[in-house]
Amino acid sequence: MHLGLIIGHVVATRKDEKLVGSKLLITQPILPDGTYTGAPIITVDTVGAGIGETVIYVIGSVAARAMHDQSAPVDAAIVGIIDSLDCSRAGGK
Amino acid sequence: MHLGLIIGHVVATRKDEKLVGSKLLITQPILPDGTYTGAPIITVDTVGAGIGETVIYVIGSVAARAMHDQSAPVDAAIVGIIDSLDCSRAGGK
Amino acid sequence: MHLGLIIGHVVATRKDEKLVGSKLLITQPILPDGTYTGAPIITVDTVGAGIGETVIYVIGSVAARAMHDQSAPVDAAIVGIIDSLDCSRAGGK
Amino acid sequence: MHLGLIIGHVVATRKDEKLVGSKLLITQPILPDGTYTGAPIITVDTVGAGIGETVIYVIGSVAARAMHDQSAPVDAAIVGIIDSLDCSRAGGK
Amino acid sequence: MHLGLIIGHVVATRKDEKLVGSKLLITQPILPDGTYTGAPIITVDTVGAGIGETVIYVIGSVAARAMHDQSAPVDAAIVGIIDSLDCSRAGGK
Repeated sequence: MHLGLIIGHVVATRKDEKLVGSKLLITQPILPDGTYTGAPIITVDTVGAGIGETVIYVIGSVAARAMHDQSAPVDAAIVGIIDSLDCSRAGGK
Repeated sequence: MHLGLIIGHVVATRKDEKLVGSKLLITQPILPDGTYTGAPIITVDTVGAGIGETVIYVIGSVAARAMHDQSAPVDAAIVGIIDSLDCSRAGGK
Repeated sequence: MHLGLIIGHVVATRKDEKLVGSKLLITQPILPDGTYTGAPIITVDTVGAGIGETVIYVIGSVAARAMHDQSAPVDAAIVGIIDSLDCSRAGGK
Repeated sequence: MHLGLIIGHVVATRKDEKLVGSKLLITQPILPDGTYTGAPIITVDTVGAGIGETVIYVIGSVAARAMHDQSAPVDAAIVGIIDSLDCSRAGGK
Repeated sequence: MHLGLIIGHVVATRKDEKLVGSKLLITQPILPDGTYTGAPIITVDTVGAGIGETVIYVIGSVAARAMHDQSAPVDAAIVGIIDSLDCSRAGGK
């Protein structure tokens, strides 16, 4: 699982029918200290996250497990909203 | 899920029989501001996307879920066409 | 599987119901000689690991296999705690 | 799916029994303009590809779908041979 | 599949019960010419590989297919030992 900051959303009218009704948020991967790391991805929101919130997201086939229709073609989903984070070192790259 | 720009297509006569009839598009990964990021990939189109359009694509085993034959050996598929995108920051790398 | 150092933990009250009760640790990927490599990730602990311990973690869909509820949307899990490590070269990057 | 150039092959007598009889080719990932990108990988050939040919390959669990024994421990397979490629921009990195 | 050089092993007494009895080797990813590339990973050995041998390994959920207990939380496994390798170019990065 990965730390991310919600920085936007996308609208896509033409899409796979199993994605209809999904909220698609742009999530920026971050380090524990909030520094950006890597390119933003599009995540399906399943926990009611909003712009500016720090979240936990998963990638790969398990992402669809968080959805109502678990057969959806989804490879990234927000599964939690961070309340607090305790980290002895921010980690390098 | 990832943002991409359709920049081309490939023709492959000799291929796995489960890929026959698939439209294979070259997709350039992009950041929310349109900047290119990383190497282009080959994606199966399932939503009628065309050159120059900005799309959402998925990677990994879930990609095949967007196809008629879900047992096809496919690891990247376009699942939506972006109408609009709202992003507070473009994200760095 | 990957080598990691446990450097923190996160608290997330709002999360997927299948994650309730899971211990979420921040794990820093490391090289065999202890050098940090890449960005930290969030891992589910299933073996009783604690801050400062060197662990083995797995990523992807197999991570959920280490959990009680194997249908949880989890893509990273600690599956072992390193007692000792013998390496002829630390490996480069 | 990814673009690759076949640059070699490997011989492995001692291997998983489900790999016996498989042709193992060294594939160099390339950009649409033919430039090398990233490290070569070992791919199973299922379409009769040869040295010097430009191919499409898949990675991950779907790769085994191209094989006769779909339960083989294979994470990369060639699924098509490129006849032609049309690309408006080669893409950057 | 990937080329790797076995450079060490790890001992982990506390681990997932499905990993008990597994030999855990530290594998350094290499290019066809033997150059190191990327960080070492921990692989399960299923073919009797030893320190200093050049091997083929797989990553992701297919890795568990090489094990006796295919439900183990394993994401990297050695599936072959290289006898010889023929490569027209070593590939760049």
